[in-house]
Amino acid sequence: MEENGKNNHVHIAGGGLVGPLAAIFLARRGIKVTVFERRADLRKGGVPAGRSINLALTARGLQALERAGLKDKVMEITLPMKGRMVHDTDGKTQLQPYGQKDTEVIYAASRGLLNAMLLDAAEAEENITLLFDQRCTGCDLQDGTLYFTDENSGAQSTVSADAVLAADGAWSAVRRTMLESVPNFNYAQNFQDYGYKELEIPAGPNGTFLLEQNALHIWPRKSYMLIALPNTDGSFTCTLFYPYKGENSFESLTTPEDVTAFFRRDFPDAADLMPDLTEEFFDNPTGALVTVKCSPWHHGKTCLIGDAAHAIVPFFAQGMNSGFEDCLILDDLLAARGTAPDWPTLFAEFKTRRKPNTDAIADMAVENFIEMRDLVTDPHFLLKKEIGFALEKRWPDRFVPRYTMVIFRPDIPYDEARRRSIAQDGVLEELCRGIKSADDIDWEKADALLRDLDTG
Amino acid sequence: MEENGKNNHVHIAGGGLVGPLAAIFLARRGIKVTVFERRADLRKGGVPAGRSINLALTARGLQALERAGLKDKVMEITLPMKGRMVHDTDGKTQLQPYGQKDTEVIYAASRGLLNAMLLDAAEAEENITLLFDQRCTGCDLQDGTLYFTDENSGAQSTVSADAVLAADGAWSAVRRTMLESVPNFNYAQNFQDYGYKELEIPAGPNGTFLLEQNALHIWPRKSYMLIALPNTDGSFTCTLFYPYKGENSFESLTTPEDVTAFFRRDFPDAADLMPDLTEEFFDNPTGALVTVKCSPWHHGKTCLIGDAAHAIVPFFAQGMNSGFEDCLILDDLLAARGTAPDWPTLFAEFKTRRKPNTDAIADMAVENFIEMRDLVTDPHFLLKKEIGFALEKRWPDRFVPRYTMVIFRPDIPYDEARRRSIAQDGVLEELCRGIKSADDIDWEKADALLRDLDTG
Repeated sequence: MEENGKNNHVHIAGGGLVGPLAAIFLARRGIKVTVFERRADLRKGGVPAGRSINLALTARGLQALERAGLKDKVMEITLPMKGRMVHDTDGKTQLQPYGQKDTEVIYAASRGLLNAMLLDAAEAEENITLLFDQRCTGCDLQDGTLYFTDENSGAQSTVSADAVLAADGAWSAVRRTMLESVPNFNYAQNFQDYGYKELEIPAGPNGTFLLEQNALHIWPRKSYMLIALPNTDGSFTCTLFYPYKGENSFESLTTPEDVTAFFRRDFPDAADLMPDLTEEFFDNPTGALVTVKCSPWHHGKTCLIGDAAHAIVPFFAQGMNSGFEDCLILDDLLAARGTAPDWPTLFAEFKTRRKPNTDAIADMAVENFIEMRDLVTDPHFLLKKEIGFALEKRWPDRFVPRYTMVIFRPDIPYDEARRRSIAQDGVLEELCRGIKSADDIDWEKADALLRDLDTG
Repeated sequence: MEENGKNNHVHIAGGGLVGPLAAIFLARRGIKVTVFERRADLRKGGVPAGRSINLALTARGLQALERAGLKDKVMEITLPMKGRMVHDTDGKTQLQPYGQKDTEVIYAASRGLLNAMLLDAAEAEENITLLFDQRCTGCDLQDGTLYFTDENSGAQSTVSADAVLAADGAWSAVRRTMLESVPNFNYAQNFQDYGYKELEIPAGPNGTFLLEQNALHIWPRKSYMLIALPNTDGSFTCTLFYPYKGENSFESLTTPEDVTAFFRRDFPDAADLMPDLTEEFFDNPTGALVTVKCSPWHHGKTCLIGDAAHAIVPFFAQGMNSGFEDCLILDDLLAARGTAPDWPTLFAEFKTRRKPNTDAIADMAVENFIEMRDLVTDPHFLLKKEIGFALEKRWPDRFVPRYTMVIFRPDIPYDEARRRSIAQDGVLEELCRGIKSADDIDWEKADALLRDLDTG
């Protein structure tokens, strides 16, 4: 721990998942941190319904939590999922494992419980102050000033620090200021033609799970899908990803009868377990799915982090995980640069190092929607998956399936994962030609292709 | 002329190049139009220096002006350019013709003169009112309301119409309201790492041209370039496109001596003709080069048009031309739908029909920068160009060079031009292999390739 860090004070806008974790890393290096959150302290209230999208914690996020000493705590509030449980329209199911090793599982997590755990951990740090009900109304990016209005008292405050991290989410107020005031700010927000709706499968008697608890359930229906993730209380949080417009769309479901008929036709086994389906369907908001890319992430003493810098769609479960990985990279830079760094320089390094990776996961997340809603029932896709696992077994250093790289191999950066998996896909297409099973792989050809494969 | 159009009143935000032309088309169909412009009437003042980027009028823009009955007028204030005059560092020049036919020329135009001519023509229409000094401070997209502040008196006004066209340019205030308030609004602004600087080559004695007057002059230097377009008064407007940062960049030119040395090294023949080089270099602003894409273009009674809907970089000279083509398409729709249409429906049709094309020209404009600054001196590129002309001569219906399609063939939409030219490029690469001149084309192979070429 370097003493000079004590002189540094960093303000963090946003007390969601990324803000508190970033605060912990900074505080551990002796930096004084204040976290400003717009909402009330959720540990005293609760999480509004229908707005979470199920979270899945994977190796990148876990690696960051582990460095923060929070891995054991988080394990207590999560449930392992070994694979995708694919449900057909007759209610028949089939488990598609995520990986080949026992350790290759992902963890279902409640956003509320996770957020509360992170706030507790941040509050336990001597150097961290948490302030709630603080709405950011503007900022001066250059000199690290934030303007807040207290949501309860209406009192206004102006606070300055040595540096500001904006962890204020996909609709970041700080990023809006960048868009309005930073010259030549590159910005893109791109919505899917799909919305999402959260629904619940309640726990059975005595908190029993009414579906397999150690799986992520998918009802893939080509142009749309329903998914379900287990909660520790025995319930499942379900999310319908569905087009806004068209024949099968939110627009076409206007009455409770429409909704019931749609679910009975497409997801009969799930519908059986949803007593409040129609009420929830019309009460819960329809969420939007957006990808936000921007550049630079920083201006003067202010830097975006997490969703504020790179909001992505949830189909690779990497929104939170990439945000936690941001914190890890930031901590690496502080380790290298000292804890009273020249912040603008450090922020520029952070963005340079991180952006190719967050761009790559943004694109892979969009691509994975097609995999989840359609390809998981496609024989050609399943054959490629099978061949991929066989290649990985034989050449573990040269061939790692895309899903495995993204989810289980934090040592492989996202952009490398994307490049390698595109190259690998050519090999898979080549090898699956004319065969029906991984048993029939032409290994002579496979070995030759693998030897030539670019693994950089 | 349909009488019911008389009951319709359309407000146009923006009295630049697109606003007045759109107003003329609407007025000719009996629609009452008011045009609101933020700036003072430029016919009474002048155009600020250093902010024009040279304009080149090409067939798409001319076609629209012709339908508006303005072609003869515009011809009086433009100069034909037959090709690119490429200048090397020794001052040697070579003309690269734009096309193979005498009619395949483009026209240099002064933004100020053109704008004044369009304002005059609009003012001459009985149905059009022009209001200047009106700053748009907001709008209600749904019901077609605009809020203005008079720049002189400070008076505020609120005006409503049956429909609003926002022709308020690349930094459209109306589009900003869409970004802030339209759900799921897709938006991207993307800056080049290059800025531009306008400079002048004054006329010689008695208004003589000191460079060839019927050409667009280029000093291509791989990663940057200088261009010059003739003005009717004998002067040339020059534009330096140059990186913001790096070894050769705006950042590296900090003193008059730096600028002089750079121009003497890279553009000696141009520098000889620029008596006010260093003053202009430091007095004129450094402009930014941005591409803006968004979707939808419309909400309720309000629709974007021209740069407001699709700002593009200037390297294919299609900013104004695509905006004028927008006006033509809008007029086609009014012809088909009647002059008191359901405006939201008409705007949706306009966007659906137009957006694939404006996306395509946006991308081609970026691609053309590389061609202009680098490839025009590349032997491989020049060979392909030569072969392209030869193919066009033999198969005029099947092969049309990209530049020709974009510039001289308004019957080929931009997106078709892009698709066809990508397919054509494969043919060119195939045919130029192993030969040094278009005289050596393997015509048997060429004919076979051309017969298979997708021209849809």
